[in-house]
Amino acid sequence: MSDQQQVQLRVGLAQIDTRVGDIAGNAELVRTWAAKAAGDGAHLVVFPEMTLTGYPAEDLVLRESFATASEQALVDLAARLADDGLGEIAVVVGYLAHTEGAGPAQVDHPPKDDADRPGDANPRRGAPRNAAALLHGGQVVTRYFKRHLPNYGVFDEARYFVPGTELPVVRFRGVDVALTICEDLWVEGGPCGVAGQAGVDLVVSPNASPYERAKDDLRLPLVRRRAAEARATILYCNQVGGQDELVFDGDSLAVSPTGDLLARAPQFVEHLLTVDLAIDPSAVPERRDGRIGPMTVTRHVLSEDPVPAFEARPGTVAQPLTDCEEVWRALVLGLKDFIDKNGMPSVVLGLSGGIDSAVVAVIAADALGPDRVHGVGMPSVHSSAHSLSDAQELAERVGLHYSVVPIAPMVDAYHSSVELTGVAAENLQARVRGTLLMGLSNQHGHLLLTTGNKSEVAVGYSTLYGDSAGGFGPIKDVPKTLVWELARWRNDQARRRGEVEPIPQHCIDKPPSAELAPGQVDTDSLPSYDELDAIIADYVDGDLGMAQLLERGHDAETVARVLRLVDAAEFKRRQSAPGTKISLKAFGRDRRLPITNRWRETLPTVREGAQA
Amino acid sequence: MSDQQQVQLRVGLAQIDTRVGDIAGNAELVRTWAAKAAGDGAHLVVFPEMTLTGYPAEDLVLRESFATASEQALVDLAARLADDGLGEIAVVVGYLAHTEGAGPAQVDHPPKDDADRPGDANPRRGAPRNAAALLHGGQVVTRYFKRHLPNYGVFDEARYFVPGTELPVVRFRGVDVALTICEDLWVEGGPCGVAGQAGVDLVVSPNASPYERAKDDLRLPLVRRRAAEARATILYCNQVGGQDELVFDGDSLAVSPTGDLLARAPQFVEHLLTVDLAIDPSAVPERRDGRIGPMTVTRHVLSEDPVPAFEARPGTVAQPLTDCEEVWRALVLGLKDFIDKNGMPSVVLGLSGGIDSAVVAVIAADALGPDRVHGVGMPSVHSSAHSLSDAQELAERVGLHYSVVPIAPMVDAYHSSVELTGVAAENLQARVRGTLLMGLSNQHGHLLLTTGNKSEVAVGYSTLYGDSAGGFGPIKDVPKTLVWELARWRNDQARRRGEVEPIPQHCIDKPPSAELAPGQVDTDSLPSYDELDAIIADYVDGDLGMAQLLERGHDAETVARVLRLVDAAEFKRRQSAPGTKISLKAFGRDRRLPITNRWRETLPTVREGAQA
Repeated sequence: MSDQQQVQLRVGLAQIDTRVGDIAGNAELVRTWAAKAAGDGAHLVVFPEMTLTGYPAEDLVLRESFATASEQALVDLAARLADDGLGEIAVVVGYLAHTEGAGPAQVDHPPKDDADRPGDANPRRGAPRNAAALLHGGQVVTRYFKRHLPNYGVFDEARYFVPGTELPVVRFRGVDVALTICEDLWVEGGPCGVAGQAGVDLVVSPNASPYERAKDDLRLPLVRRRAAEARATILYCNQVGGQDELVFDGDSLAVSPTGDLLARAPQFVEHLLTVDLAIDPSAVPERRDGRIGPMTVTRHVLSEDPVPAFEARPGTVAQPLTDCEEVWRALVLGLKDFIDKNGMPSVVLGLSGGIDSAVVAVIAADALGPDRVHGVGMPSVHSSAHSLSDAQELAERVGLHYSVVPIAPMVDAYHSSVELTGVAAENLQARVRGTLLMGLSNQHGHLLLTTGNKSEVAVGYSTLYGDSAGGFGPIKDVPKTLVWELARWRNDQARRRGEVEPIPQHCIDKPPSAELAPGQVDTDSLPSYDELDAIIADYVDGDLGMAQLLERGHDAETVARVLRLVDAAEFKRRQSAPGTKISLKAFGRDRRLPITNRWRETLPTVREGAQA
Repeated sequence: MSDQQQVQLRVGLAQIDTRVGDIAGNAELVRTWAAKAAGDGAHLVVFPEMTLTGYPAEDLVLRESFATASEQALVDLAARLADDGLGEIAVVVGYLAHTEGAGPAQVDHPPKDDADRPGDANPRRGAPRNAAALLHGGQVVTRYFKRHLPNYGVFDEARYFVPGTELPVVRFRGVDVALTICEDLWVEGGPCGVAGQAGVDLVVSPNASPYERAKDDLRLPLVRRRAAEARATILYCNQVGGQDELVFDGDSLAVSPTGDLLARAPQFVEHLLTVDLAIDPSAVPERRDGRIGPMTVTRHVLSEDPVPAFEARPGTVAQPLTDCEEVWRALVLGLKDFIDKNGMPSVVLGLSGGIDSAVVAVIAADALGPDRVHGVGMPSVHSSAHSLSDAQELAERVGLHYSVVPIAPMVDAYHSSVELTGVAAENLQARVRGTLLMGLSNQHGHLLLTTGNKSEVAVGYSTLYGDSAGGFGPIKDVPKTLVWELARWRNDQARRRGEVEPIPQHCIDKPPSAELAPGQVDTDSLPSYDELDAIIADYVDGDLGMAQLLERGHDAETVARVLRLVDAAEFKRRQSAPGTKISLKAFGRDRRLPITNRWRETLPTVREGAQA
């Protein structure tokens, strides 16, 4: 590359909402969005991590038929893109590869000897790879295998994949393009560092990076650090959409080697971000291949000729959302995709007149439209008058379907048959409601939403098979204090738009109560939610022990009480519905604790005479 | 070591039932069993993997307070053993170590740069290690960090631990002892290979190897291969007991370098296996240290003098159990430990007169004694006369508590309040039963047992929050055909012992039915259980795709129907109770599939003109 001029390239970052397991459908999505990008004049378009299989595909990865289908779909896709007249643009897609060699369980298990190994999830069926390929001219031009496999939090990639050791660099229209995948970008001295030593012009990075509150604030500084390390422009393309407990927020971006944010896509929507690059190949002092650090760099020349000069457009940069708006949209998209991707026509939920069910109802209405939302008031003898009136008012404001089924006849029937008192009688009411709602779910095909928040789920303040019954828990990872904040924000947003505020003010203002016993309020058995949520954040999200919790200023007795509740509720959580993760550590796959567990946080006792 | 004579050593393998999280209690267990071993004249005693913390401790490992407590307990234990007068015997215990350096999530994440990394489960708190230590004379003499970390099936060790690279060899009473842990033994060319090259006399291997059917058949050949590789005697000590979904079977054994089985402990009981070794140090041609393969061998001399000559006793070899007995004892111990370790006084279950609830009732009675088992008959209008009479007969034969609550009043109350027909009406009956049983559970402190078998759990032939309600599912991993086999075996065993056969023959003989609709039998909606279980074994346990399933001779239409059911039931399984794993792949942590999943097994279609 002797040309000292700037080389232009129009690139597209297609942040799309793929479906796990829908290989054919995802390939169609790629064709549609590649055509869109070509229509917009793009020369190269990048799709998210594991585009063809969806992410995370979990144990489907271990199934040979699935891996084979992914490999076949990649080859077919290359051919189809060419048939579509899109053979000239370079398309980077993620897929599940299936190479020769030992799978991840066998990394340390040489074959032959232990072929009879029990419990081996992946016996000698080749090595699954988290892969990305560059397609061009009807062909699969090059394949990259993810090097850094996250295996913490919600991630289990060491279970599935064998890490790659090659960094392919493809010269396309005079621009040297290196392929990486997601986690590779989080590692200093990883593939971006190798790319920096090898000398490249552009690093593409397909991602499946799950949403967490304020994670977008970390992405730009991170990509800037890597762009500096790679001495190249980085194209970061993240997927969008809900997948069980995860929601992906997009937020794709392009950053120049000097750290300039060239363009940034909005969060929570499918979007094609187009960026016009002007690359100066002379800025790369040297171009090498072969062994660099732990990787081997290979180079492929696809085309030397730069694209004809074109008039560059300035990149668009989406404005960041406020915290509440970001969380709200995460919850709405997480629920919408769970319902729609699972083909459910509608949802049903119990409306108690309380804040949790009110917020869930509005999230559901925002996600699905109010006509697909069915609320049911189920008053008992302990229900206050405002329970029903608040629920009804909410239903009217939101415009959802509403019906009322008093639970007394069922509750009485149980009490005539068995003796249930105290907590057993309280739980009975919740279970009668759960049974009614599941009956309506079965009868009408609604998916039942459970309305428990993270504070309740943490301390087990719910009835198993009662109010915890449901196929999805939209606010499962939302602490109670944030539920209130979201309610106020959503009403405020409606007011600004001149719309009816969906949530009755009284739902927000009244003291929370399960209304399972006369005059009951939550604070009878729990500390204030301000206190509770602060402890949960430190104990659950932060994994702090007793000494650290006390250092953080929490009241010792309250901490002891809360921790006992959290520890004892593990068996309930194990049977709880999935719900959208928004926090650093959500209940579910993110936090894996034994049910049978004698560990209780206490202050460490030093044995007399013992040396630490 | 110039002595060419044989060196004697009496070693103990203490296969004990530890409790996850009970660091103090587990340390006490070690003291008790070390004293027992010393009383039996042992010079060295080996305990299972992660003795002090219990195994698997899951995300407790990530909590700094927990790791610190484990480290402290190890030091305390060494001192206490000396105080107990046990300072002269060498005690090998497993524990959770906490070393300087980056944790597993940071293996590829150097510090500083990405300190703000989101989703990081273990931010810079030091490196947790799956460790074993040799205690002697009041001191921690040496520490070994597990090298091979299983991360497949039920295992997530790459999530928790940093692998070790050092192999410590301790000379104790003239015998060179190398430390390894569990998975290290499954790897050819692993630490045993390194030990073989270094030259050692004895390899100790603390294990936490979960029970699977016939896994014991693999252990002896495996240990023999490693003993040959290590050119040393191997002491394999496995833990015993239930921990949530896992049960450990013990089956500890000692194998000589030439592959002789010196002794073998029984399965499913705490046991001290004592073995008298006669070691010939001259059989080791060379003794090296330093870098060998991927590990560094270090040598410590604790004592050169052999123990005084003693009269050796022959080792005892426990006889293998039959398949049914082995499975039965796994189920009994898995349930017993779940109930007792969680401090539950008693269990309750619905007795339908069918085979599943009959078998679960007998397992519970065998585990807890009949006085802690409460059966409830809950007849409906669809119940046949024999349902009640078979249930009652079972209760009498087993001697458990029995009561009857007809469900009609509750069912009628629901029907008067909401319209529920078809499947919704069928499920209602199951949910009324679930609510009744949970009421009794709350009222009396019983843990509710759910009686679904693996075949039902696979195809979703159960009602969520109905018959699937419960805190533990004893036969969750037992296919229906094996349920029958176990019933016949258990009756046969009783007959041989001259006891009353616990299960009425009619429970075994009658066609299975959910009795939720008039004249209903399982085969109305399912294939025969022989056919079903064979397909489940291949699809679920074997992870086979459609082409392979058809090659195995299954009927194409039946396979398609069963696979559709299995795939669609994922949301139910996600909320199901834990139950003892006995198969190669149990539902639960062993098999992690997305709920939202469009992948359906079909025969691969080759696109016209496409190249594979």
